[in-house]
Amino acid sequence: MRTPIPDYLTEILDSVRDIKDGEVADYIPALKDADPNLLGIAMTTAEGHTYSAGDVEAEFSIQSMSKPFAYAATLTDRGIDFVETKIDVEPSGDAFNDLSIEEDTKRPKNAMINAGAILAHQMLIGEDATMQERVDRVTDFFSALAGRKLTMDKEVFQSEMDHSHRNLAFAHMLTSYGMMEGKAHEAVAGYTAQCSILVNVQDIAMMSATLATGGVHPVTGERVIKRSVVRHVLSVMASSGMYDSAGEWFTDVGIPAKSGVAGGILGAIPGQLGVGVFSPLLDSHGNSVRGVEVFKRMSSDMSMHMMEVDGVVSRSVRTLNTGDDTSIVTLQGSFTFNAAESLLYRLENEKLSSKVVFDVSRVERFTGVGRRMTLEAMRRLCAEGKQVGLADPEGVLPKPDMGDGTYPFEYCG
Amino acid sequence: MRTPIPDYLTEILDSVRDIKDGEVADYIPALKDADPNLLGIAMTTAEGHTYSAGDVEAEFSIQSMSKPFAYAATLTDRGIDFVETKIDVEPSGDAFNDLSIEEDTKRPKNAMINAGAILAHQMLIGEDATMQERVDRVTDFFSALAGRKLTMDKEVFQSEMDHSHRNLAFAHMLTSYGMMEGKAHEAVAGYTAQCSILVNVQDIAMMSATLATGGVHPVTGERVIKRSVVRHVLSVMASSGMYDSAGEWFTDVGIPAKSGVAGGILGAIPGQLGVGVFSPLLDSHGNSVRGVEVFKRMSSDMSMHMMEVDGVVSRSVRTLNTGDDTSIVTLQGSFTFNAAESLLYRLENEKLSSKVVFDVSRVERFTGVGRRMTLEAMRRLCAEGKQVGLADPEGVLPKPDMGDGTYPFEYCG
Amino acid sequence: MRTPIPDYLTEILDSVRDIKDGEVADYIPALKDADPNLLGIAMTTAEGHTYSAGDVEAEFSIQSMSKPFAYAATLTDRGIDFVETKIDVEPSGDAFNDLSIEEDTKRPKNAMINAGAILAHQMLIGEDATMQERVDRVTDFFSALAGRKLTMDKEVFQSEMDHSHRNLAFAHMLTSYGMMEGKAHEAVAGYTAQCSILVNVQDIAMMSATLATGGVHPVTGERVIKRSVVRHVLSVMASSGMYDSAGEWFTDVGIPAKSGVAGGILGAIPGQLGVGVFSPLLDSHGNSVRGVEVFKRMSSDMSMHMMEVDGVVSRSVRTLNTGDDTSIVTLQGSFTFNAAESLLYRLENEKLSSKVVFDVSRVERFTGVGRRMTLEAMRRLCAEGKQVGLADPEGVLPKPDMGDGTYPFEYCG
Amino acid sequence: MRTPIPDYLTEILDSVRDIKDGEVADYIPALKDADPNLLGIAMTTAEGHTYSAGDVEAEFSIQSMSKPFAYAATLTDRGIDFVETKIDVEPSGDAFNDLSIEEDTKRPKNAMINAGAILAHQMLIGEDATMQERVDRVTDFFSALAGRKLTMDKEVFQSEMDHSHRNLAFAHMLTSYGMMEGKAHEAVAGYTAQCSILVNVQDIAMMSATLATGGVHPVTGERVIKRSVVRHVLSVMASSGMYDSAGEWFTDVGIPAKSGVAGGILGAIPGQLGVGVFSPLLDSHGNSVRGVEVFKRMSSDMSMHMMEVDGVVSRSVRTLNTGDDTSIVTLQGSFTFNAAESLLYRLENEKLSSKVVFDVSRVERFTGVGRRMTLEAMRRLCAEGKQVGLADPEGVLPKPDMGDGTYPFEYCG
Repeated sequence: MRTPIPDYLTEILDSVRDIKDGEVADYIPALKDADPNLLGIAMTTAEGHTYSAGDVEAEFSIQSMSKPFAYAATLTDRGIDFVETKIDVEPSGDAFNDLSIEEDTKRPKNAMINAGAILAHQMLIGEDATMQERVDRVTDFFSALAGRKLTMDKEVFQSEMDHSHRNLAFAHMLTSYGMMEGKAHEAVAGYTAQCSILVNVQDIAMMSATLATGGVHPVTGERVIKRSVVRHVLSVMASSGMYDSAGEWFTDVGIPAKSGVAGGILGAIPGQLGVGVFSPLLDSHGNSVRGVEVFKRMSSDMSMHMMEVDGVVSRSVRTLNTGDDTSIVTLQGSFTFNAAESLLYRLENEKLSSKVVFDVSRVERFTGVGRRMTLEAMRRLCAEGKQVGLADPEGVLPKPDMGDGTYPFEYCG
Repeated sequence: MRTPIPDYLTEILDSVRDIKDGEVADYIPALKDADPNLLGIAMTTAEGHTYSAGDVEAEFSIQSMSKPFAYAATLTDRGIDFVETKIDVEPSGDAFNDLSIEEDTKRPKNAMINAGAILAHQMLIGEDATMQERVDRVTDFFSALAGRKLTMDKEVFQSEMDHSHRNLAFAHMLTSYGMMEGKAHEAVAGYTAQCSILVNVQDIAMMSATLATGGVHPVTGERVIKRSVVRHVLSVMASSGMYDSAGEWFTDVGIPAKSGVAGGILGAIPGQLGVGVFSPLLDSHGNSVRGVEVFKRMSSDMSMHMMEVDGVVSRSVRTLNTGDDTSIVTLQGSFTFNAAESLLYRLENEKLSSKVVFDVSRVERFTGVGRRMTLEAMRRLCAEGKQVGLADPEGVLPKPDMGDGTYPFEYCG
Repeated sequence: MRTPIPDYLTEILDSVRDIKDGEVADYIPALKDADPNLLGIAMTTAEGHTYSAGDVEAEFSIQSMSKPFAYAATLTDRGIDFVETKIDVEPSGDAFNDLSIEEDTKRPKNAMINAGAILAHQMLIGEDATMQERVDRVTDFFSALAGRKLTMDKEVFQSEMDHSHRNLAFAHMLTSYGMMEGKAHEAVAGYTAQCSILVNVQDIAMMSATLATGGVHPVTGERVIKRSVVRHVLSVMASSGMYDSAGEWFTDVGIPAKSGVAGGILGAIPGQLGVGVFSPLLDSHGNSVRGVEVFKRMSSDMSMHMMEVDGVVSRSVRTLNTGDDTSIVTLQGSFTFNAAESLLYRLENEKLSSKVVFDVSRVERFTGVGRRMTLEAMRRLCAEGKQVGLADPEGVLPKPDMGDGTYPFEYCG
Repeated sequence: MRTPIPDYLTEILDSVRDIKDGEVADYIPALKDADPNLLGIAMTTAEGHTYSAGDVEAEFSIQSMSKPFAYAATLTDRGIDFVETKIDVEPSGDAFNDLSIEEDTKRPKNAMINAGAILAHQMLIGEDATMQERVDRVTDFFSALAGRKLTMDKEVFQSEMDHSHRNLAFAHMLTSYGMMEGKAHEAVAGYTAQCSILVNVQDIAMMSATLATGGVHPVTGERVIKRSVVRHVLSVMASSGMYDSAGEWFTDVGIPAKSGVAGGILGAIPGQLGVGVFSPLLDSHGNSVRGVEVFKRMSSDMSMHMMEVDGVVSRSVRTLNTGDDTSIVTLQGSFTFNAAESLLYRLENEKLSSKVVFDVSRVERFTGVGRRMTLEAMRRLCAEGKQVGLADPEGVLPKPDMGDGTYPFEYCG
């Protein structure tokens, strides 16, 4: 059987292909020559499967889509707490080319606007790092995320450097505020190199998927970014990723995302997917016109809006059968707080036999809090004098210490 | 067995009880007299179970926590599209007592700041509604959400009206911009009445739980708010609910929330919980100091940060056993896009027998997209000449039309 | 002989009569019906002579031209120092309908914008004054300045009250900042009444002439406003009188001025003239289009730009003739600091006889500093052993105490 | 006789000497080492006499006091109209180190703030000028104004260049707005060189005196700056010279002025004086604390506030004696518009003989408009059949063409 997902992606692309609104970025020559007809999409699941359609091979500079990844690298290198003293996490409501400095602390409002991103780049590695080291740091990191060696487009780099007056202004202003170590010109040059790294939609999807997994590379299975760093980056993307239309984006699309002026948009749906879309025609906010439409359709069709609640009834307790001497509680699904609460609620309100057996063979997984709550229930049943058993043929609840070093007896049906 | 959840809530309260920072709201006499020691929490699950601890019975005025609910009523009464022409959905980055009007359109930035909330209140029902009708509308609606008859605190109302100069300024300004029909004074009076409705933490938890379920009352099971309206309200809460610390809140706590100046904070975790916390001491943003701490602890302990990814491996295909003439695909868990994708991926890459049976008896539920994708897989297998069967003893996949009017054969094991 | 000045004024009006740009104020019905063709001018000299041309009798509401006069009344009633604690003296750079509040102190930026003018009105007389008393205060004061009983246009008043949402917003905001005593609605009503007083260009010229004289009514010769208050008001008019085009106005025209939305512009050239111009068509700043042009022409033709230096050579010492025993120093002109300095310079560098006689019969007047310096020169000559005489047939240097109680001997030629 | 003016200046210095408030500029090392006790003053009259007291020889960098002079040079080199397309003339209300760009046109608000001054410097001479040529231009121009060869302090220049991040930010921002030709770094370097020119208070007084005369060097008598340029520069100084305290300065002091961060303040009183004061301790606005006090005292003691009206009665017609066949009109003083109006008024209201003789021997001078009006009066008298004579022994009314080519008859008493 051929999976229908590529067909579905093609269908989405076709539905936006006739939109000709917008303009290619014209502020630098190297972007002005982009083919406005290019249109591509890729998505990589948390399990590492990639699907794509359209102009999949077309390369384009990563531009501002580099910001969340470079920010993740900076947070990794310097620590979240230290970075927060330099870069705030508030939405700016301003266009990407506004300074957006917090009045009191002189921090850029967030790392998704240029001032914050230049500062984040300059903070990579450590105080003594050279420009080359910082550029190598992001290139290597982005390559690791994409799963292939990425390179910089020298023409784009040179062209942007020739038109980097605003970024130079930001960098000098940050220096004058005492917020930035090092030379303003080098900070802009390094940041511009970072923006000039060439990617295609598959790279973007793969890189974003690592955010969606919480930091584990979906193909290699290696942890590439700390969970706390990913949470931080996704939070900032959610509130500030789409410049001055951030609120509209979050209301309409509801996916943490970031756009780049070359026409790319990336999205990361926590626990699910990384997505990359590419189409060079931009709206007045600097976001890809067709890219935005693609995300709107996906969000709606695939119920991926983070504030969409698509059915909530938890059936974590599949059955609870109480016989003469044994109650068998069959659990199922993913054991989050809510699933565990549902279990505890049932246990509190049912009359149970003297033996209580928990069958977790149909449970997909326990989250931390789900595990703690389930073990606490067992402990309380023991304290009431019950005998507690566990049927866990696949070991989803390893080392089931009930708080006092004792384990439930093994139950094999 | 007694459920440990109330103990857990008590423990959280105890952990913040010694925090004495902040001040009670002093701008109106009726709030100034609040007992600063009061501290309470309640949570209501999507299934309608309520847990609470601390000063559960203490009543306080709902204040700005009324904003998301009144906004929901306005969106219901007037339609999302029309309301968006009057009130934007962008974060304001400003304090609750700033005007925060969009330069071009003169729209208040969002409905969580006062200017937007006054306008949202004034838009309730329709152009010809009277002030009393609008006040009744919100009182009835809030009562329906809380599950009990709520009333207004007349003393708080009168006290706030005596100190409503800023709100009157906003209302007059909106009128001068042509954004508000009706009389400025009445708009403020109605809005102030709305803010003076008395609640306790259980009311707040119950009301918020209806947002968490996507609009279905967790106890009665009735749909009270349209899903699209809830999504819209939660999105705006996520980006703008906590005033000028919205970004910090979303980064640290990651729960759509709203605070009130009487000391309440509500949170709504989509698909999971509504939460209400009450403690009158406020920080400089106007948010309850201990309330913020309670939410931080809950978010961290209970993995409720929306950008937290707590394990992602989908095991939607529990087993796939291929015998001589039959392949049996046993599915489990919640069938979202990702779960379905995982199934499709397996089907594409496995050699299957001529009969393929899908056992969905361990599936909790299918989302819309999960159902469509699963049926599409069945259709494609049929098209390849396979015979497709379905074992669905609990009817989680009703009317399994494979796109051409035919159903899979029933399989009973 | 008929004076050519009215002809000159008519000529200026004719030169701008064909300008049809601009719009009559349309925000209130009563102003919308103004005849756009009306055009009039009047000027009153510091000596009290009035010249006029065009639609001299046409009455119109004084509107914002009331601001400097009401401000003068407030400064008189409450004292400059106290008023400065409530209203700043900085240019706002904002349109007249912006709030323009100083961040720290919450003071309106100046008394020429609406927020400042409403507050200035509300501060008239004293804390306990009623609205009627304040309205009477300005009506009487304006009437005294104009030299005739002025009255309010009730239709304009009512019409503006119906459209005073923005002013009400300002008043409520000022109240919320604790900057304004009394009721917001009354403050706006009183201010609106003040703006509705009917004047013609001759009234405006006469009222402005009292500013030009430093506070002495040019016809009655009575001191109506303290000199320090006039200086304060003229200074604020110079930097803030023309809203957001204040800098352009001061550069181009160089005359302290104030415009009103009914089409009037007043100008006060210190020491020289009061001017009133009326033409209802307004530019985008809210200033009369033809009125601005009239002022530009007058400023240029009549060398009335305050920063224009039109010849500077002081000839304060007309002759200095030294004979055998007497030096006769013949002074002339107006004896300011510079004139006196010029005298002192000559005295220091000339060889004088033992008798030195100062002939001041050609001196127009001595300013305070000019008098002090001239008497000091006499004192020093005495100290050097000279005999000092004074020829002052018209008594321009009365009581010429040389610092030690002695006077110069009288010299009669 | 020794002139008392230096004593008076010494007395003023003594009155402020004990003020120890404020701080020396600490943002660059070269300024930080300034002796905080230095205190000096100089004034140069429009006639070219210079008086001084205190630390007269102490040299300091001109800093922002260079702005009005460099602006005058730019206006001269490029024309007022062209320069206005690049630099606005509105007060900024912002501190000197704010960007203060006009929203629409991206013009710096005025040439007294850094952004405007950097741009003004960069516009010197013409598009093709080199940095060295621009630096030479201002150095030569300032030297010509000061009457001695001025030089740059290389240490100050280098020190400021090391701390010029904010100015570099401004320059890059202006470049990004397309407002500035040439290289941002060179613009800042040239401007910094301009600010590093060393002066003493006498230089400053002399330079300012040329503004006070309307552009004629007070010592050489040569016209150094066009009158229209001086008027423009003084107007901008009046409204924007003292940064964010411009309104307070104009209200309190009323003298067009400019301060520099090394501790200098210059003032130019049109028609009268140039003043230079030096004391390194600065207030929070960046203005010399004692310098401000000195100006306040001078303004008050010497009646130099431009909005002060110190006596207005014009006595332009000294006497008007009508005999049987001749009326003799004796004029005096400076013949401005007002003086001429006063004459015309008398002529209109008096019964005159058939011969009318104007004795102008006591007239100091005629302004342009005064001359025109006086000649027009003669023409009208002729037209009425009068014989008109003129007594003008000193030729203050040369070529008295009465409009038709005829002259009044000469009258010799």
